[in-house]
Amino acid sequence: MKKLYFATTNEGKLKEAKSILKVEVVGTPLEIDEVQSMDPIEVATKKARLYFEKLRKPIFVEDVSVFIKALNGLPGPYIDAFMKTLGNEGIVKLLRGANERSVTAQATVVYIPKMGVEEVFIGEVEGTISDKPRGEGFGWDPIFIPKGEKKTFGEITLEEKNKYSMRAKALKKFKKWLEKEM
Amino acid sequence: MKKLYFATTNEGKLKEAKSILKVEVVGTPLEIDEVQSMDPIEVATKKARLYFEKLRKPIFVEDVSVFIKALNGLPGPYIDAFMKTLGNEGIVKLLRGANERSVTAQATVVYIPKMGVEEVFIGEVEGTISDKPRGEGFGWDPIFIPKGEKKTFGEITLEEKNKYSMRAKALKKFKKWLEKEM
Repeated sequence: MKKLYFATTNEGKLKEAKSILKVEVVGTPLEIDEVQSMDPIEVATKKARLYFEKLRKPIFVEDVSVFIKALNGLPGPYIDAFMKTLGNEGIVKLLRGANERSVTAQATVVYIPKMGVEEVFIGEVEGTISDKPRGEGFGWDPIFIPKGEKKTFGEITLEEKNKYSMRAKALKKFKKWLEKEM
Repeated sequence: MKKLYFATTNEGKLKEAKSILKVEVVGTPLEIDEVQSMDPIEVATKKARLYFEKLRKPIFVEDVSVFIKALNGLPGPYIDAFMKTLGNEGIVKLLRGANERSVTAQATVVYIPKMGVEEVFIGEVEGTISDKPRGEGFGWDPIFIPKGEKKTFGEITLEEKNKYSMRAKALKKFKKWLEKEM
């Protein structure tokens, strides 16, 4: 069975990747800095390269960006910094009174099977930013209403949420690519 | 005469550094990615290390962060991304109606004279974000009112502005350190 490295130590993410890719997926505690850029493909690709340089094994990284239209695309790849500084309360405050509330969450997976080969797989979910945080959940779940729902990711079940998972969408594209290769 | 490398190609910055440091200052067109972090010292130090690894010559970098209190410190080191996406108009819009308008601009200089030595010099200027962009000037000049002024950096002369320069403050600390070393 093929063995791929995934640049995470998050058990949930590893399990999800294993179940979608149907290969052995091994996490790595190696920490690599992310570069400053509003381009999620640049961020993920450079991160993957650094991991590959260290590990010299087939490795993929996955990175989530959140593009809020009223903020001209911010925070994009800087979503973690926004969560740490403003949090969900602060982000909805920035959009107070705004009619334009659309947002796209993008998962970018970059896979480097060997030196010089870089494959990019993107999964997106569109939605709107809620007027205030609602429900529980991880990160920006409480303020993200996926298109077709009235509830935030924080208010729906994990099963419902998984239907919209931008990470699952990116991993499924990756799976298709792997099938052709294997 | 001592020769230092400065990680910039900006003629104005090179001239300023030369005039304050009283040493030969040589620019470099080498481009190095900046890491994602809200800590300006981490950003500047990691950048300086990468430059030093490539050049193996005494090198300093200078990086500006802008901490807006009402945004809990954002954009910080991500000021370039904020300028490119929101611009000055967008930033003042984020603060519309806010009473808390204070802001700190910080220049962080990191100098690596040789492997294992990293010196950090910080210059700060405090101020407030104007209600709208006023005047001309570079970057966020039109929305930054330094403490003690009623005008933005965009409305005062370069000579007046230089009194407040956070970069000059950091470079002067660097100069003092160099004097002790030489």
